[in-house]
Amino acid sequence: MALAPKSSVAKNVLNLAASIEGIEFKYQEMPMGGNALDLTGVPLPEETLLAATQSDAVLLGAIGGYKWDKNEKHLKPETGLLKLREGLKVFANLRPAVVLPQLVDASTLKREVAEGVDLMVIRELTGGIYFGQPRGFGTNENGEEIGFNTEVYAAYEVDRIARVAFETARKRQGKLCSVDKANVLEASMFWRKRILAIALEYPDVELSHMYVDNAAMQLVRNPKQFDTIVTNNIFGDILSDEASMITGSIGMLPSASLGESGPGLFEPIHGSAPDIAGQDKANPLATILSAAMLLKYGLGEENAAKRIEAAVLDTLNRGFRTVDIYSSGTKLVGMQRNGRRSIEV
Amino acid sequence: MALAPKSSVAKNVLNLAASIEGIEFKYQEMPMGGNALDLTGVPLPEETLLAATQSDAVLLGAIGGYKWDKNEKHLKPETGLLKLREGLKVFANLRPAVVLPQLVDASTLKREVAEGVDLMVIRELTGGIYFGQPRGFGTNENGEEIGFNTEVYAAYEVDRIARVAFETARKRQGKLCSVDKANVLEASMFWRKRILAIALEYPDVELSHMYVDNAAMQLVRNPKQFDTIVTNNIFGDILSDEASMITGSIGMLPSASLGESGPGLFEPIHGSAPDIAGQDKANPLATILSAAMLLKYGLGEENAAKRIEAAVLDTLNRGFRTVDIYSSGTKLVGMQRNGRRSIEV
Ligand SMILES: CC(C)[C@H](C(=O)O)[C@@H](O)C(=O)O
Ligand SMILES: CC(C)[C@H](C(=O)O)[C@@H](O)C(=O)O
Repeated sequence: MALAPKSSVAKNVLNLAASIEGIEFKYQEMPMGGNALDLTGVPLPEETLLAATQSDAVLLGAIGGYKWDKNEKHLKPETGLLKLREGLKVFANLRPAVVLPQLVDASTLKREVAEGVDLMVIRELTGGIYFGQPRGFGTNENGEEIGFNTEVYAAYEVDRIARVAFETARKRQGKLCSVDKANVLEASMFWRKRILAIALEYPDVELSHMYVDNAAMQLVRNPKQFDTIVTNNIFGDILSDEASMITGSIGMLPSASLGESGPGLFEPIHGSAPDIAGQDKANPLATILSAAMLLKYGLGEENAAKRIEAAVLDTLNRGFRTVDIYSSGTKLVGMQRNGRRSIEV
Repeated sequence: MALAPKSSVAKNVLNLAASIEGIEFKYQEMPMGGNALDLTGVPLPEETLLAATQSDAVLLGAIGGYKWDKNEKHLKPETGLLKLREGLKVFANLRPAVVLPQLVDASTLKREVAEGVDLMVIRELTGGIYFGQPRGFGTNENGEEIGFNTEVYAAYEVDRIARVAFETARKRQGKLCSVDKANVLEASMFWRKRILAIALEYPDVELSHMYVDNAAMQLVRNPKQFDTIVTNNIFGDILSDEASMITGSIGMLPSASLGESGPGLFEPIHGSAPDIAGQDKANPLATILSAAMLLKYGLGEENAAKRIEAAVLDTLNRGFRTVDIYSSGTKLVGMQRNGRRSIEV
């Protein structure tokens, strides 16, 4: 497995769960993002991409920070992340947002609205405006300076993410909501047309369509109406962050990015939170739960994955909380300062 | 003033407020959207655009409905709306989201999170991916079918919306947050560069930048952190709908769309809500408050505008509620069934 350095908490958890299940990992830690920039001058060294491609699964810590914020585009940590997603061809990004009973009160939504939310955002990850050509800077016909990007989807790109979404919905509550802006954008009209075509293969899944502005609103109004959501790269970026906050903290949420074949990429949804770096108060659960997704979706090791999920719930049941999900009556922990692992597998 | 038919509640309110202030209106009611399609076969007849252009202000009811949902793009009600915005050159869309003390409990956010929210989203309305060329359908170099749009901003487009935003922030709490996706999109990097250039003219306004995914999250986490937000057309569409729901109901929220000169366009943020059409339960306040914005921003009649705003508050204070903002202890009204105007100016 290729591993970004410093994901040591997740690595410990992975090793524990694996050893109980009789699995042994070989790790290869490779630089990427901010630390690759410092070490090698580029955000995704060729060796890192090669090692990732040759692994069974890739676990990624959060990337980026103020230090590199003003870098030119090709030297931004984010560019490394996009290149890694592209290089691994992981077009399907699964972002579950579950409100755990233990954490209902961490949500800013009222208890009755947040309670029981269990949705999955499936975001297309290697197409759309993130990768569309042409893009760049130039001048228009009046000689005015411009900046531009292209939102574009080809049939095969929509078809394959649609199939992942329908399959996922089928294993969940059987409800799929496709989010687009088909009342305005041709790229969305095309998206909807292909979703409808693939829907014929899944008559047992209940399909609906929603405009993205309405979806952003409905996630606040009544998130429980959603089971599985499928949407394009940029809308998925926005809606999955919004959905994550419904669960109380983005510090809780893992993600899995999968391709047709080859290793999956597993990373927390949250960024590197440079505002709290070194303060030992980051919530490690998103990365730990990403390790669980790695076991489940990346290696097919469901039992080991379940051990990690159970350990997380157990830790929460025992009242341990990082500051982002702390509420009165629970026990505040800084993972290091506390001097012990509060997650026991 | 050009007026879409059936905005009769708002018209009554306008007339009352105006007569007290000694203002007299000449109305011209013109078809647009769904009803123009039925009457004339196009969503924005030339006569409607001409009448709108020649008015002092344009009040628009909600457009669209299931009946026309499957229409080809040039025959969609939404296309009429986009043409009207373009034709009137109203590039600055002001969308206030205020949590009224009377309605804190209508919000799905916890009282302590919703209470006191008073933000303004300023959305660029005539540029970006809504209007960018090229757009359409075609095939890529592999012969695959594609759908595509162009996100593009020219310097003058960002500059003029930036100035509206800085001026607005200056009159409010002096804080402006520009929302973009400058870690990925060139159009956003360019947006940010121009915002920074215009910021030099407004040293008294505190400027910050936020990525759109984070903004979608922060609006749920802590909406009170925002004063004025400025963003592009599509991000503004999404974030303003999300922000509106924080106030409890999108049925409450008005909007004003302004150009350099010429008439402004005033419309509720909400759609035509075909799911409740004819049930006499729609909240008329968004349209009524749009009439107030028309008086204030469109005609400079601040006093008449204040009368309408005060009447709305008074009505809420007296406990009248449509079903979307109803809570126990208040009085449910269907505006017609009730047999009387519950809004008194
Ligand atoms: C860091 C950034 C490039 C990335 C994205 O926009 O995809 C992040 O926001 C995410 O959602 O994983
Ligand atoms: C109806 C639609 C074209 C419109 C938009 O996307 O601008 C609406 O959602 C709005 O926000 O006014």
